[in-house]
Amino acid sequence: MDCVIISIGDELLTGRTVDTNSTWLCSRLNILEIRVIENITVPDEVNRIEEAFHRAFSIAEIVITTGGLGPTDDDKTRDAIAHYAGVKLETDVRVLEDIEAKFAARGMYPPRTSAREALIPEGANTLENTVGVAPGLYLKLDGRRHLIALPGVPSELKDIFEKQLTPILKQLPGTPKNRVETFYTTGIPESALSQKIFDALGNIGTEGLAFYPSNLGVEVRISVSADKTGYDSVTDIIEAVTKPWCFSREEKNLAAVVGESLKKRNEAVTVAESCTGGLLASRLVDIPGASSWFLGGVISYSNKAKSDVLGVNPEDIELYGAVSPIVAAQMADGAAKIFGAKYALSTTGIAGPSGGTEKKPVGLVYYALHTPEKTIVRKNRFIGGREDHRYRTSQAALNLLYLHLTGKHDNYPWADGSTESEY
Amino acid sequence: MDCVIISIGDELLTGRTVDTNSTWLCSRLNILEIRVIENITVPDEVNRIEEAFHRAFSIAEIVITTGGLGPTDDDKTRDAIAHYAGVKLETDVRVLEDIEAKFAARGMYPPRTSAREALIPEGANTLENTVGVAPGLYLKLDGRRHLIALPGVPSELKDIFEKQLTPILKQLPGTPKNRVETFYTTGIPESALSQKIFDALGNIGTEGLAFYPSNLGVEVRISVSADKTGYDSVTDIIEAVTKPWCFSREEKNLAAVVGESLKKRNEAVTVAESCTGGLLASRLVDIPGASSWFLGGVISYSNKAKSDVLGVNPEDIELYGAVSPIVAAQMADGAAKIFGAKYALSTTGIAGPSGGTEKKPVGLVYYALHTPEKTIVRKNRFIGGREDHRYRTSQAALNLLYLHLTGKHDNYPWADGSTESEY
Repeated sequence: MDCVIISIGDELLTGRTVDTNSTWLCSRLNILEIRVIENITVPDEVNRIEEAFHRAFSIAEIVITTGGLGPTDDDKTRDAIAHYAGVKLETDVRVLEDIEAKFAARGMYPPRTSAREALIPEGANTLENTVGVAPGLYLKLDGRRHLIALPGVPSELKDIFEKQLTPILKQLPGTPKNRVETFYTTGIPESALSQKIFDALGNIGTEGLAFYPSNLGVEVRISVSADKTGYDSVTDIIEAVTKPWCFSREEKNLAAVVGESLKKRNEAVTVAESCTGGLLASRLVDIPGASSWFLGGVISYSNKAKSDVLGVNPEDIELYGAVSPIVAAQMADGAAKIFGAKYALSTTGIAGPSGGTEKKPVGLVYYALHTPEKTIVRKNRFIGGREDHRYRTSQAALNLLYLHLTGKHDNYPWADGSTESEY
Repeated sequence: MDCVIISIGDELLTGRTVDTNSTWLCSRLNILEIRVIENITVPDEVNRIEEAFHRAFSIAEIVITTGGLGPTDDDKTRDAIAHYAGVKLETDVRVLEDIEAKFAARGMYPPRTSAREALIPEGANTLENTVGVAPGLYLKLDGRRHLIALPGVPSELKDIFEKQLTPILKQLPGTPKNRVETFYTTGIPESALSQKIFDALGNIGTEGLAFYPSNLGVEVRISVSADKTGYDSVTDIIEAVTKPWCFSREEKNLAAVVGESLKKRNEAVTVAESCTGGLLASRLVDIPGASSWFLGGVISYSNKAKSDVLGVNPEDIELYGAVSPIVAAQMADGAAKIFGAKYALSTTGIAGPSGGTEKKPVGLVYYALHTPEKTIVRKNRFIGGREDHRYRTSQAALNLLYLHLTGKHDNYPWADGSTESEY
């Protein structure tokens, strides 16, 4: 079945909040073989929400709303559903009792406004919210349209979706999925990679082929209907071309791939970050179970921290600058030593927007990998803004460790313009 | 003028990519007094994009698309624009030369596919892209509809918007803005804060009042048309009620407020992170100019790192556990010492999803503030998932420093269920 997501909230249209809910829902619905064909974001206005219901049900059978179920007057989703469905809002005594019980468990009385959260459109089922207060709503209209309302708070939305909604959606007929193969690559720009793939495919054609570039690499995806012939040979060709830069076919996140590899080897990594300022550590800690292979790290943002904490030679900082290959190497060596880790990654660079010079422009970064045998330093010059540089540097550093762990490093066809030195 | 944003890309509807572009555009358009009234996300299909154009121009005069301008066959935006406008696509020789020059500057030839990026709908103006390759497009239809196409790569989109598009949009008549006042609060739940405000407003009413809760606090916003009477008194009431928990009226990010305060005092902070794993450092480094007041920090994810690097007493870890007030205090003290900072913040907690016990459940966190006089430890029990706990802990720790720097700490009306001890 096809689905439209309606994201409700003024804050989404004035740029105050990034809508991560619809992305999360899309990925979950995709797994359930429910195809999301459109996402509409509208303000907290009953008319506009209702208009979106009309539009959505004209192209899909399932409509899921997010947001607007809170206790305050600017939460309009309940009203819009009732108006669209032509039913009344009624207080659900069981829901009201449940709200009171939730507050009582914390030793509090519910604020009066909470009563709004127990107003349910006639005929709707409630979907229990075990994280927050307001329940989700599920209304089946004329036997074939499914209208589902979820709260906007991400942890509540996820809780209701997983525990209450998934079993309901699994009962609905799925949309037959395409056969999809994905190649997660890093270290080669989209233009160069796509050119290589097109050259290799020749006149086989590129139907269903897509490239998704980001600061972390290029995701190559081929998606065709299951009965299409010649699919395997196309996949084989793409596999052969992307092989050097492809770090996974299943896992999008290089940090997870590196973590898995370290875990298997019973080895650990630590980090010493300057320009990435905690991003690299944060990406590693994000992986559940990271504590078995990530020991911790140092964010040495100041020169003093580089020398006092990591043991970088102050004279080298003076002579070569904090953004230099020798400082990158000593940062990695220092982190490995103080944390007692086999591997250490370090980063130092000019993230911008200011601080660049002619010799050391914004986007210049050095990153190093300490191993027991040697310390490898790579230099790169990234384009983009402060955030781009930090993400790209974190990914390039992780890739350096990945290449080392997989034995790919020595014959790797570098395609990102970076250069290497050893210490 | 009103605007609709159309985000184009299969990757947005399968949950692979979070759409940050439309959020960024909304905030910029808001500043230019252009009201975004809807955001529609559609797949890479000419029909669906064209259908979105019809829908969008039925409610707005400005339509901005993002994505689908790349070099490959799955980039359909140009085709959809040409078809919608009823014009041909023609190669723009100047654009083609510009693409060749960009590749030449890097010592490369453009891949053949790049020629697609020089195809321009008849009658459209190109908007120069100084970061990447494909230019943006601006097509004025029948003198009153404005169709603008921007690339999906965020740094390119921002570059074109700021340098090329902003001057064009400034020429268009703006939508009169409401008077808006915002109160950024943290440390009090939405239900409690809204109840206090409703009680204080009494029968004045709550028109234009909105609450935006997140892991970082609650944003209270009042927005009414400029000629509405009684506005000032409503604002005064909200100001008085939110005062204890309001850290700014202009700056959404508490890390920036804390940084500004440290900068003025010529003081510095450092961090020792366990459960937040680099997030706190990352949030501080995100603030431009952070190097003058943020010295760096230690991510002590393992117990060994806590004792070896930060000097936490291993016997205390053994006796009380890594998630305990005494360990939080010693982490902060250790970080202050090794970085030579006046202040240090530390975090330790059970972020989940696993690792919780009956005595130390998932969501239990301790965070500490080291000051020259004393070290303050607070305990909290957050609800939600792993990411929620990390964000909430980072914000609670920053708030502790904020309260100390502003002298608010001693009389602060704690409203988040946390408790305090001193070391």
